[in-house]
Amino acid sequence: MSQIEEKFAKLGTENAPGQEVRQSSTTDSSELRGDSLPGVPVDFSHGDVNRSAFEATPGSLDEFIRGVKSGGEQAYTEYRGRADIRESLATHLAAFTGAPVSAATELIITPGTQGALFLAVAATVSAGDKVAIVRPDYFANRKLVEFMGGHIVPITLDYLGHESHSGIDLSQLEAAFKAGAKTFIFSNPNNPTGVIYSQDEIQQIATLANRYGATVIVDQLYSRLLYPGRVYSHLRATDIDNSNVVTIMGPSKTESLSGYRLGVAFGSARLIDRMEKLQAIVSLRAPGYSQAVLRTWFDEHANWMQDRIAKHQAIRDDLIQVLGTSGDVITRVPEAGSYLFPRLPKLAVTLHQFVRNLRYQASVIVTPGTEFCPDSTDSIRLNFSQNHEAAVAAVERIVELVHRYRD
Amino acid sequence: MSQIEEKFAKLGTENAPGQEVRQSSTTDSSELRGDSLPGVPVDFSHGDVNRSAFEATPGSLDEFIRGVKSGGEQAYTEYRGRADIRESLATHLAAFTGAPVSAATELIITPGTQGALFLAVAATVSAGDKVAIVRPDYFANRKLVEFMGGHIVPITLDYLGHESHSGIDLSQLEAAFKAGAKTFIFSNPNNPTGVIYSQDEIQQIATLANRYGATVIVDQLYSRLLYPGRVYSHLRATDIDNSNVVTIMGPSKTESLSGYRLGVAFGSARLIDRMEKLQAIVSLRAPGYSQAVLRTWFDEHANWMQDRIAKHQAIRDDLIQVLGTSGDVITRVPEAGSYLFPRLPKLAVTLHQFVRNLRYQASVIVTPGTEFCPDSTDSIRLNFSQNHEAAVAAVERIVELVHRYRD
Repeated sequence: MSQIEEKFAKLGTENAPGQEVRQSSTTDSSELRGDSLPGVPVDFSHGDVNRSAFEATPGSLDEFIRGVKSGGEQAYTEYRGRADIRESLATHLAAFTGAPVSAATELIITPGTQGALFLAVAATVSAGDKVAIVRPDYFANRKLVEFMGGHIVPITLDYLGHESHSGIDLSQLEAAFKAGAKTFIFSNPNNPTGVIYSQDEIQQIATLANRYGATVIVDQLYSRLLYPGRVYSHLRATDIDNSNVVTIMGPSKTESLSGYRLGVAFGSARLIDRMEKLQAIVSLRAPGYSQAVLRTWFDEHANWMQDRIAKHQAIRDDLIQVLGTSGDVITRVPEAGSYLFPRLPKLAVTLHQFVRNLRYQASVIVTPGTEFCPDSTDSIRLNFSQNHEAAVAAVERIVELVHRYRD
Repeated sequence: MSQIEEKFAKLGTENAPGQEVRQSSTTDSSELRGDSLPGVPVDFSHGDVNRSAFEATPGSLDEFIRGVKSGGEQAYTEYRGRADIRESLATHLAAFTGAPVSAATELIITPGTQGALFLAVAATVSAGDKVAIVRPDYFANRKLVEFMGGHIVPITLDYLGHESHSGIDLSQLEAAFKAGAKTFIFSNPNNPTGVIYSQDEIQQIATLANRYGATVIVDQLYSRLLYPGRVYSHLRATDIDNSNVVTIMGPSKTESLSGYRLGVAFGSARLIDRMEKLQAIVSLRAPGYSQAVLRTWFDEHANWMQDRIAKHQAIRDDLIQVLGTSGDVITRVPEAGSYLFPRLPKLAVTLHQFVRNLRYQASVIVTPGTEFCPDSTDSIRLNFSQNHEAAVAAVERIVELVHRYRD
């Protein structure tokens, strides 16, 4: 296998969320237990942005149309994004995260948070570099590091073993830094578990990063969808050396604006500068007209976010309750975001077969845990930003199939 | 300098089109000759998509809005783009280029043609690979190859020395392949000169690629804006081994849809497959709602494209005439697209200083030739997709400044 063939062989997307349509829809029916279960199909691989579930931020399409009508100034922005939009975002993001952001030098608008993550990793990681990655964590973190030729040093997140904190093994993180890892990448809240890192954990990450001069890329995509009573700690608001931190956010999830492909990265001017240079040859800029939609971000109606959080919380609680009826499905209650990552009991079929059977027999799409951690062969991820009723019925079907296929 | 610092040091964007706003706007006035010239500012670094110049394809915004209203199915497409849109594009692109395209396996929708070019190069070029690049050609070709760690083998385009063909030095191309170059990247029509490759040249490129098993990435972004009497030859319609060819197009230029960030790459299933895997971690997908706008592409009203070409031709002819009045500015008449690449006489200031003076004294933005070829220190690129009257007046100011700064 040539060098480039090897590189792409690691980049499998067959089990990635949203790609299920490309899998064969046939299955060997002799291996199936019982009949198909009727019900409204639910695709838990991503949130539902339709009217029956969670629609985009009010006014977002209007801002897009205003952007189109304003013509060239919105179509052809600087590569890092339109200056006045960056100004307004910098103010909002500084207030939200508790530390200043320079619109001129410390912020870039990207095509989705995926775009921000790619640019941040490519601006930081070279071939041969060691990079600390949490397990489980967002699957692209691993793939990005591997594509850059980096070597992954896994850090365990014992999310089921704790309630007052995330359960990250900070001694492993220190060992990774000692062994030469120069970069740490993690999502907070954690994707797929919905766990948030405690103030103490975040402070310790900052202390370790400072001690070893490590760069930290923190994906805070879901940090606005925080359930009541939970405290969220922003890494960039600690005493960490902010010239070594890039924070990533975007309006694709909580705000249901994924179809516009928008994200932002902010922090280290040195890294943001590299990211812009790279963006110039990767996609030129985030879609110009879409950038106008960012004018709605952090400027939603007063009760809109509260209402959105309350609705997600109600779905979360009902799904946890339904999963509990199975007796042996274990789920940590997510503290932020809209992911559930239940651990299933031992099944008579492989995880990937079970996921296929869910699709085939229960009209339910979920993402196998192995996308997030090679050892998560017993877990599935659900994005519960869905129609409430349909989601509850779909999880009832999941529990029924767990029952059928239990070993 | 560390490995990654070196990599990014090569990725300068200060002189890239659209980034002029980041340059200092002050200049040492003691070095300026004469007063500022009044007139409507013209930014020739990109096309003007405002009402007074070339607006987007009729109906494009309506398709976008329909896409938004259709919700999740348009927001969350497969990474390679929505299947029914790929079907329709495959039909149009096969007819346009004269060779079949499989919508399922041979086409990917990307964030702009820049996105397509990045993915194609990243799917093809590994560190240490030799890559043949035309000089002059689109500046990102060089930067992309360098970013992947490839080595550039320059191929001369003697565009001023010929009229019946482009002037590519095919013996250099064969020598490059003999010396181990596995990839050839070029734009047709050539950006910045507007030259198209003759049928014979295209056939010879195909023959050489077949003989040496080389992969060819051909950027045909401007191939629809073809002036009357010119014959355009599609590389993929020759006897070239199509498993080694990727063709790139998009509606950002002729169709003025750049603000939606849309491009397509089609050809080699093997490479398209890699490109999708990479897109999954670079930006996930082309903006979902924007993809809906592709429904207007190759489906414009019957006379719309003819009218657009005629208008560009009229501007082209007037600008060539104005440049001719200078006596010693040499320009080859572009055969397709909306770029002019005039060669200026010897000036008393550097090219970059002259470009700054144009901005400062004449309210005209052009792109220095050095972006396209290190030796093009005497040329400037103009995108003449502008308001006709304003463009003519702006080029009159350029000629006046050439006169002032002539050595």
